[in-house]
Amino acid sequence: MSKRVGVLGGMGPMATADFFRKLIEETPAQRDQDHLPVVIYSVPQMPSRDKAITQGGESPFPQMLAGLHALKQQRADFVAIPCNTAHFWYEDLCREGGIPILHIVDAVCDELSHARSIEGPIGLLSTEATLLSRIYHDRLLQRGIELIVNTPEERDKFINPGIELVKCGRLEEAGIAVQRAVACLLERGAKKLILGCTELPVALEAIDSPSKENCIDATRALARASVSRALA
Amino acid sequence: MSKRVGVLGGMGPMATADFFRKLIEETPAQRDQDHLPVVIYSVPQMPSRDKAITQGGESPFPQMLAGLHALKQQRADFVAIPCNTAHFWYEDLCREGGIPILHIVDAVCDELSHARSIEGPIGLLSTEATLLSRIYHDRLLQRGIELIVNTPEERDKFINPGIELVKCGRLEEAGIAVQRAVACLLERGAKKLILGCTELPVALEAIDSPSKENCIDATRALARASVSRALA
Repeated sequence: MSKRVGVLGGMGPMATADFFRKLIEETPAQRDQDHLPVVIYSVPQMPSRDKAITQGGESPFPQMLAGLHALKQQRADFVAIPCNTAHFWYEDLCREGGIPILHIVDAVCDELSHARSIEGPIGLLSTEATLLSRIYHDRLLQRGIELIVNTPEERDKFINPGIELVKCGRLEEAGIAVQRAVACLLERGAKKLILGCTELPVALEAIDSPSKENCIDATRALARASVSRALA
Repeated sequence: MSKRVGVLGGMGPMATADFFRKLIEETPAQRDQDHLPVVIYSVPQMPSRDKAITQGGESPFPQMLAGLHALKQQRADFVAIPCNTAHFWYEDLCREGGIPILHIVDAVCDELSHARSIEGPIGLLSTEATLLSRIYHDRLLQRGIELIVNTPEERDKFINPGIELVKCGRLEEAGIAVQRAVACLLERGAKKLILGCTELPVALEAIDSPSKENCIDATRALARASVSRALA
């Protein structure tokens, strides 16, 4: 019997739906009953994660903690959070949530270690908040992996609008914007790109981006880690 | 403040993910916080709905009821069930669940009444169990709408394999099979088709079926009804 997966979602909702679909795609199953038991808490009524981190705004931590408690009440065995920025509060959520939580960057690191050797730097596409929180930098530095990131101008012009367009359902426009941020990092020599914000794969898939092969999708990495954990 | 949507899912999981995505697509939203609060219970460990109805097999009712209770505990204001066949137990679930439940066929009827006048019969693609339970026939007959359905041979050759292929993640093969069932009903004069099983739109979208325009997607209809209810 597989473990029950809890999903702390809503950050944003479309990214949560994308994670759910990838969780199903990554599960070896012949029929309904082979799929994982999953409970998803997708309640996006919380303060902005970005503003909390970059501008000292109101913290969304109480709402995230309430979500963890709901998932615990529904007997989830562990939790996945399909939002990179939310991992700023990872240690606090682990300490106060009372339920094991997978770390999305650990899942990405597992994908990297399965990949064949990577020559040259890895590009990271993410929000400013994810950069400030160093959740990727600290973990990848430990593995001797060098990261290059978009300039603040590229984030303002391509990544942030791309993320916002996904949140309001304009996926193709989002894809075009995100593709330009991808191109900037490829031009600067990145051999592989980490899509370190869960709106980004939604955007690139909407335009069937030719760069998908060069990308490590943190959402899919977290889905794979969840399936491994659930079936272990 | 919108109402909280409960989703009794897992029947099957991919259909639940499809419903979740459509719920997000149908919500007018500019940012995360505008999206609906949603809790999804997708626990597919239950007896086969089809066997229970067509062969008198073990009933999945206790597991469905447990799901409703979980959603009620998470303060859902109402529930949507993205599975047509599951509506065989609709009245019992309403009576014992203690929470309002939308009916997927009422949602389809709403779509039909918004459509321009439909000349000629409507085709219904569904499982045998959905036909036996008459959930579509009884409601549409009340509105004077005539239904034509696939032959048992067409169901065995195209619809049932299509549904099973979705459940094991082989979506394009599923699409090709379902498209053949669609073609049979169009050839027999159907002017509009109801996709009366929530695996069917997943299959047809995987092949970007040209028949999508002729189809009423019960999953999207239920998503629209859920958004209306939540924002009412």
